[in-house]
Amino acid sequence: MSILAIDFGGTRTRAAWYDSELNQLARTETLSRVNDTAEEVITRIIQTAQAVIPPGQQPSSICIAAPGPLDPHRGLIRHAKTLPGWKDIPLVQIIRDACHNAPTIIENDANLAALAEHAYGSARGCDPAIYLTISTGIGGGAIINGKLFTGWSGLAIEPGHTRFTLPDGSIRRLEELASGTGIATLARQRLETSNQPSILRAHTQVDAKLVGEAARNGDVLAQSIIREAGHWLGLGCVNLLHLFSPQVIVVGGSVSSLGEMFFGPAQATIAEQILDPAFVPENLIRPAQLGEDVCLMGAALLARQHISA
Amino acid sequence: MSILAIDFGGTRTRAAWYDSELNQLARTETLSRVNDTAEEVITRIIQTAQAVIPPGQQPSSICIAAPGPLDPHRGLIRHAKTLPGWKDIPLVQIIRDACHNAPTIIENDANLAALAEHAYGSARGCDPAIYLTISTGIGGGAIINGKLFTGWSGLAIEPGHTRFTLPDGSIRRLEELASGTGIATLARQRLETSNQPSILRAHTQVDAKLVGEAARNGDVLAQSIIREAGHWLGLGCVNLLHLFSPQVIVVGGSVSSLGEMFFGPAQATIAEQILDPAFVPENLIRPAQLGEDVCLMGAALLARQHISA
Repeated sequence: MSILAIDFGGTRTRAAWYDSELNQLARTETLSRVNDTAEEVITRIIQTAQAVIPPGQQPSSICIAAPGPLDPHRGLIRHAKTLPGWKDIPLVQIIRDACHNAPTIIENDANLAALAEHAYGSARGCDPAIYLTISTGIGGGAIINGKLFTGWSGLAIEPGHTRFTLPDGSIRRLEELASGTGIATLARQRLETSNQPSILRAHTQVDAKLVGEAARNGDVLAQSIIREAGHWLGLGCVNLLHLFSPQVIVVGGSVSSLGEMFFGPAQATIAEQILDPAFVPENLIRPAQLGEDVCLMGAALLARQHISA
Repeated sequence: MSILAIDFGGTRTRAAWYDSELNQLARTETLSRVNDTAEEVITRIIQTAQAVIPPGQQPSSICIAAPGPLDPHRGLIRHAKTLPGWKDIPLVQIIRDACHNAPTIIENDANLAALAEHAYGSARGCDPAIYLTISTGIGGGAIINGKLFTGWSGLAIEPGHTRFTLPDGSIRRLEELASGTGIATLARQRLETSNQPSILRAHTQVDAKLVGEAARNGDVLAQSIIREAGHWLGLGCVNLLHLFSPQVIVVGGSVSSLGEMFFGPAQATIAEQILDPAFVPENLIRPAQLGEDVCLMGAALLARQHISA
């Protein structure tokens, strides 16, 4: 049994070849260049995938990790912020046709990362387990009773899309408040509306990484921005706790490297807002353990489940 | 096999006796009078339960429905708004001792209602299924893969406790915004802060029922209050959809009788805020079908699962 895993992301496309024990036997990656036409991007995905298939062999099962929302039942990428112009693209059929007609499935990349962190990473032995990836946006996945949970539509879970209202009455997604983009937006607003001195004022473009560095160097305004984003993350986690009562929330993605100055305020908000402390296990929020191949690993796991099912 | 089901609520305590096919063979109810001491209340629960046990028989299994948050693993009522002074009361042990030492479990009343609506009511054949009960507060339950879902702590799901922020920056629970209490609070605020004429001004005490009647009779202020509560309910449902992607949301409880003027705005908010229409099945929000014995029925179902497990 051989498994082909493909991780098609907004920045990079990766592919790997696994045996039945999920040993990675070959791996390659390329830039996705999603601003090219969909056809060009798809051609690159196919080439990347085919590059890891050993000569004369064919995969027993293929799984594609891709940005959501996607329809795993029909094998479509519905649309995605990170994929301009993509609309109901039948990526499953395209890959199957290009790869020896092997059984092929597609799944949300954060869902597959949840599966991998549950099998081999920070969520091992925990049920329910929630995985959050916090970078430009916020994606997520849930494992319930040992299985990937995707709900009736197959599109769950999308914690980044839970809604909050702001003091001005507007409705915002969690990912607009607690992601890298949220931190950058908050920084721009604060720099405009306050006179507080800050090293951030010396920069024409302020992103989450810069805010994080400034905060680490003692910039008070930057620290308050990270704290506010952490508070929103905490409120998002409060809702996850009241709805899923997870044993763990594993957090990956670039923004999670902010560490304690981000997660501390989140934990304070959780402690303050939770209905009952019995909802909050020790060591609830944990950093992700698996690295950049986490989605490939999750794809390999789901592909294997798919053929043994 | 005989099953004893007990439904201990803030207002009424009910008990019923079922055979293995879940035919209800006996039933009684009494007022809970929760402002009496816990001992007096518990004595009444025991008397009510014993009243339905046929002479000379004993139950094979007992399940108690009670308000949350409760700890089903340890058999405790942790505390509850509706039960002043109750704290970690071991109701399971008390009932077991009083009822022939039969295997006894306890579960959140809204969770049991979810189980019953899934087995016999509006959620039949739907998975995942969410049940909401909207009255003084908002309770809820979820069925996932055909089973009652309660998470790691056993305390899930508590949709009434998901958090929103208000324009004044304060954090509120969904049940403070979209329940009967929420509607009454909103009415008081509106009557104070606006000059809009309203029949509600003729009353010294305004509750959700009164607001509903006024709205039905064309009172514009009352209508806008119900509409706002419906909007908050919709936002709560948007979060449930993004997290559980349920096939159905069954709504029971006294406030659900407001009907279209409450659910219409909820549905409009869902349509406006959902990430992808594929999350929203036809006929998503449905009225509960089972009546006041819904929790007894759910308790009987769980008690039966418990002995056959």
